[in-house]
Amino acid sequence: MARHSLASIVALLGGRVAGDAQVEVTQVGTLERAGPLQIAFLSNPRYTSRLATTRAGAVVLGPGYEGLSKSPCIVCDNPYAYFARVSQLFNPPLPPVPGIHPGAHIAPGARISVTAQIGPAAVVGAEATIGERCILGAGCCIGERTSVGDDSRLYPGVIVYPDCCIGARAIVHSGVVIGADGFGIAMEAGRWLKVPQIGRVVIGDDVEIGANTTIDRGAIEDTLIGDGVKLDNQIQIGHNVQVGAHTAMAGCVAIAGSAHIGSHCTLSAGALILGHLSIADHVEVSAATVVTRSLRKAGTYTGLFPIDDHAAWSKNAVLLRHLSELAERMRELEQRLSAMEKTNG
Amino acid sequence: MARHSLASIVALLGGRVAGDAQVEVTQVGTLERAGPLQIAFLSNPRYTSRLATTRAGAVVLGPGYEGLSKSPCIVCDNPYAYFARVSQLFNPPLPPVPGIHPGAHIAPGARISVTAQIGPAAVVGAEATIGERCILGAGCCIGERTSVGDDSRLYPGVIVYPDCCIGARAIVHSGVVIGADGFGIAMEAGRWLKVPQIGRVVIGDDVEIGANTTIDRGAIEDTLIGDGVKLDNQIQIGHNVQVGAHTAMAGCVAIAGSAHIGSHCTLSAGALILGHLSIADHVEVSAATVVTRSLRKAGTYTGLFPIDDHAAWSKNAVLLRHLSELAERMRELEQRLSAMEKTNG
Amino acid sequence: MARHSLASIVALLGGRVAGDAQVEVTQVGTLERAGPLQIAFLSNPRYTSRLATTRAGAVVLGPGYEGLSKSPCIVCDNPYAYFARVSQLFNPPLPPVPGIHPGAHIAPGARISVTAQIGPAAVVGAEATIGERCILGAGCCIGERTSVGDDSRLYPGVIVYPDCCIGARAIVHSGVVIGADGFGIAMEAGRWLKVPQIGRVVIGDDVEIGANTTIDRGAIEDTLIGDGVKLDNQIQIGHNVQVGAHTAMAGCVAIAGSAHIGSHCTLSAGALILGHLSIADHVEVSAATVVTRSLRKAGTYTGLFPIDDHAAWSKNAVLLRHLSELAERMRELEQRLSAMEKTNG
Repeated sequence: MARHSLASIVALLGGRVAGDAQVEVTQVGTLERAGPLQIAFLSNPRYTSRLATTRAGAVVLGPGYEGLSKSPCIVCDNPYAYFARVSQLFNPPLPPVPGIHPGAHIAPGARISVTAQIGPAAVVGAEATIGERCILGAGCCIGERTSVGDDSRLYPGVIVYPDCCIGARAIVHSGVVIGADGFGIAMEAGRWLKVPQIGRVVIGDDVEIGANTTIDRGAIEDTLIGDGVKLDNQIQIGHNVQVGAHTAMAGCVAIAGSAHIGSHCTLSAGALILGHLSIADHVEVSAATVVTRSLRKAGTYTGLFPIDDHAAWSKNAVLLRHLSELAERMRELEQRLSAMEKTNG
Repeated sequence: MARHSLASIVALLGGRVAGDAQVEVTQVGTLERAGPLQIAFLSNPRYTSRLATTRAGAVVLGPGYEGLSKSPCIVCDNPYAYFARVSQLFNPPLPPVPGIHPGAHIAPGARISVTAQIGPAAVVGAEATIGERCILGAGCCIGERTSVGDDSRLYPGVIVYPDCCIGARAIVHSGVVIGADGFGIAMEAGRWLKVPQIGRVVIGDDVEIGANTTIDRGAIEDTLIGDGVKLDNQIQIGHNVQVGAHTAMAGCVAIAGSAHIGSHCTLSAGALILGHLSIADHVEVSAATVVTRSLRKAGTYTGLFPIDDHAAWSKNAVLLRHLSELAERMRELEQRLSAMEKTNG
Repeated sequence: MARHSLASIVALLGGRVAGDAQVEVTQVGTLERAGPLQIAFLSNPRYTSRLATTRAGAVVLGPGYEGLSKSPCIVCDNPYAYFARVSQLFNPPLPPVPGIHPGAHIAPGARISVTAQIGPAAVVGAEATIGERCILGAGCCIGERTSVGDDSRLYPGVIVYPDCCIGARAIVHSGVVIGADGFGIAMEAGRWLKVPQIGRVVIGDDVEIGANTTIDRGAIEDTLIGDGVKLDNQIQIGHNVQVGAHTAMAGCVAIAGSAHIGSHCTLSAGALILGHLSIADHVEVSAATVVTRSLRKAGTYTGLFPIDDHAAWSKNAVLLRHLSELAERMRELEQRLSAMEKTNG
C-alpha cells in the first residue's frame, strides 16, 4: 500500500500544507469516517462543521477553511479535483497482465497488441485492432474491423459491433452496447420497413461509459462522441447523435436520433433530448427535463413537475388540466371589472 | 459492391425516373454529403433547399419536387419507404455462415438447423429449437425448450430464458433479456413473497428488439408481442403485457405489467404506460408522457412539463403547487364582482 | 406434476376450505382461464364478478366472498400472499445440479461450494466465494474477492465486479451489473478527472434484482442494499446509495448517488430520486415522480404532468409557462376590485 507524507503529495500535485507536513496517509476517506491514516476533503461549504469532529489524518480544503480544521491540511483552489488526484495516487488502475486467455476466441486477422490483456470467453472479430495495454474483460465481444485505442479498458461483457472506433484511454463498463442498429423504420402500407444502419460509432479519447449504456450506430453517417465525454449508466444515445467534447451525462439520460449536443454540457439524471435538436455548448439540463426545442444559448434549463404529497398534487393536477378555462375566466373578470370601472368612473 | 442504374432500380422497386435513367449509383447517402455514386432522398419538405446544393448522383423524392433537383430523380409516393428499399438493395444483411462454433455449448437434445450459424461461447439449452438460417451471436444464451424461428438474427449477448418463443425473421440486438421473471411480489407481515412467474414470452414474426431491452415472462399466462412490432433500445416490457401488431416504441419506453397496447400504435421516447391499462389501436403517445388511464380512442396524447430557462420554470413551478389557491381566489373575485355588479345594477 | 387437495393445502398453509375439501388441483391459474385442475385467486374486489363465470377448480379469496363462488374456496386473510405460497408449492425453483461446467473459467483460489452449479462460460475470479447450492448461469462473471451467499441464483450474463458481497437466497436476473464504478468526476480546467471508486456494493439476504439493473460501487464507502429488497428491471442505483430493508422498486426507477432510501418504501415505475436526499421509512413515490427534496414523513408523494389529448395539453402547457403572469394579473384584479369596493362602500 502506498504511503505519502503531505509534503510529498504537494510536491507531486501542488497546493500547500497547513500544519504538520510530515504526517503520512495511505488512503482517502470521508470526513465522517476517515481515520488517522486517511486523507479527507471539504469541497461543499455545507459540510464545514465536520472539520471540527473529523478523525482524518489530513484534509484537503480551499483557502480560508484551514483555520477550522484540527487536522493538518492541504490548501488548494479546487479541493474536489485535488482530492481526485490524491485518490488516483493511492488507487492507480491495475496494470494489464499481457496475454490472451486460452478461453478467448480471436478471429484470424485480428490485430492485438502483445501488451494487451484479453479475458476468457472474449471474442475479437477479423481485422479488429486492440491497442497497447488494453484490457478486454471476460466475455467482451469486439466486432470485425472495430478498433480500440491504447490503454483502453473494457470491463466484462461489453459488446462493440463491427466497424466502430473507440479512442485511447477509454473506460467502458459492463453491459455497454456500442454500434447496435439505430431505430430506423419507414411505414409502408401498415408495415414497418427496416432502414439499414450503415454508419459507425466513432468515440474520441478519454471517454468513460457507464454500465448498460447503449450507443447506436449511424443510419448513413456516423454517431460521434467527442473527447473527454463522460457517460453514466443506462444512457441511450440514438443514431447520428453528436456529443461535443467534455460533456457529461448522468444516469438514464436519453438522446434521440440526430440530436447534436454541444461541448462542456451537463445533462442531469433522466434528461431526454428529442431528435434533430441542437444544444449549444455549456448548456445545463436539469434532471428529468425533456428538451423539446433547440437550446441556442448557454444556461440552465428545467421542466419538471414539482413533487407534492399525493392529495395536494391531485388537486393541482386537475386544475392544470383546466388551466385554459381558468385563463378564460380571468379574461372575463378583467373585462367585467373594466366595464364597471368605466361606469363608476 | 452492388451497382445499379436508376432504370434498374425502378424496374425492381417501382416509381419513375426524372432525368438520366442510366446514371449508376453504388450506395445511399444524405443530401448534404452524398457524392456522385450515392443516391439520397428528400422526405421532409423542410429540407427542400438542400436539393439545390446536393452533389448526390440521384435523389428519391415525392411528386412535385423533381423540378427542384439538378440531379436525376426517382419520383415515388413514399420517398422514405422507397429509400429504405433502395438501402436494403445496397446493404443486404450478411448471410449466415452455417455451423456451430467449437466454442459454443449445445445441450443434448437441442435442435439446431444445419443452416444456422452459432457463435463462440453461445449456449443452447436442452430441447431448444433454432430455425433455418438463424444467426446466434457470440455469448447468446437460449434457454431450455425455447424456440427461435427461421431467419432470425440474435446479436452477441442476447439472453432468452427457457420456454419462450421467438418468431421468424426476428432481429434481436445485444444485451436484450427475454423471459426474465416479472415483478410479482406479495406483501405478508412486512416481507415480500415471490410469486412464481410461470408464463412465457411469445413473440410474433418480423419483430426487431433494440439493445438492452427487457421483456418479462408472464406471471401465469404469457407476455405477447405481435407481428411486426419494432422496439428500440432500453425498453422495459412487464409481465403479461400484450403489444398489438406493427406497434413501434422508441427508446426507453416502459410498459408496466398487464397493460394491453393496441396495434399500429407509436410510443415516443421515454413514454410510460401504467399497469393493467388498455390502449386502443392507432394511439400515439408523445415523448415522456405517462399514461395513467386507458386510452379508448385513436389519437395523440401528451403530458409533459414544458421546458424553460431555470429561473422562469422555478417561478411557475412554485405557482403550480398553489394552483388550487389561485383557483380559490378566482372564485372569490367572481363572487365579489357579481355582488358589486348587482349593487351597481 | 404435484397434485394437492384443498385439504392438504390448508394443512400446509393455513386458511380454511369452503366447499369440497377433497377437490384436487395441480397448478395455479387466472379466474378467466383456469380449468378444473387449476386454483385461481381473487384479491382485487374489482374482479369479483369473475367468480360467477370462472371454471377454476378452486379459488383463494378473502372472508365474505366465499358465497359468491360456485367453485370450492380457500378462505384466508391475505389472498394474494396465500396465492403466492400456493404457486410456490406447485412451482418450486429447480434445484441446482452440482458441478462446474468444463467450459467455465475458475481462477485459482476461488472457493466454490461443491453443492453449487456453475454454467458454461461463467468466470469466477481469484478468492471469490460461491456459497452452498448457488447457481451461476452461463456467462456470469464474478470478480475477485466477491462473495455470493448460500442458495443464491444468478441467471445467465450477470456481472459482479470485484470485492462485492451478495447475501443468501439472492435472485439476480440476466444483464444485471453490480459494482461498476459510480459516476465520480471532478472538473479541472475544462476537463473531467476521474475520482477512483474504491467502495464496494454490499447486498443483504433475500434480495431479488431484475434484468439489466445496475448498482454502482461506492466512491469511498459502500453502496448498501438491505435485506428483502426487491428491484425490478432496468433500475439504476448510484454510488453510496443506501436502500433500507424490504423496500421495493418497480421498473426503470433511478436513485442518484448518496441518496438514502428508508425501509418498507415502494417506488413506482420510473420514479427518480435525486442525489444526497433522505427518504423516510414507509414512503410511497408514485410513478415517474422526481423526488427533489428529502421526504421526512411516511406518505404518498406525486409529481406528474397529467396526460391529455395533445391539443388540450398544448393549450394548457403554454399557459403553464405563463403562470406567473396569470398570478400577477390576479393580484392586480384583486387590488382594482378592492379599490372599487372601497369607493362604492
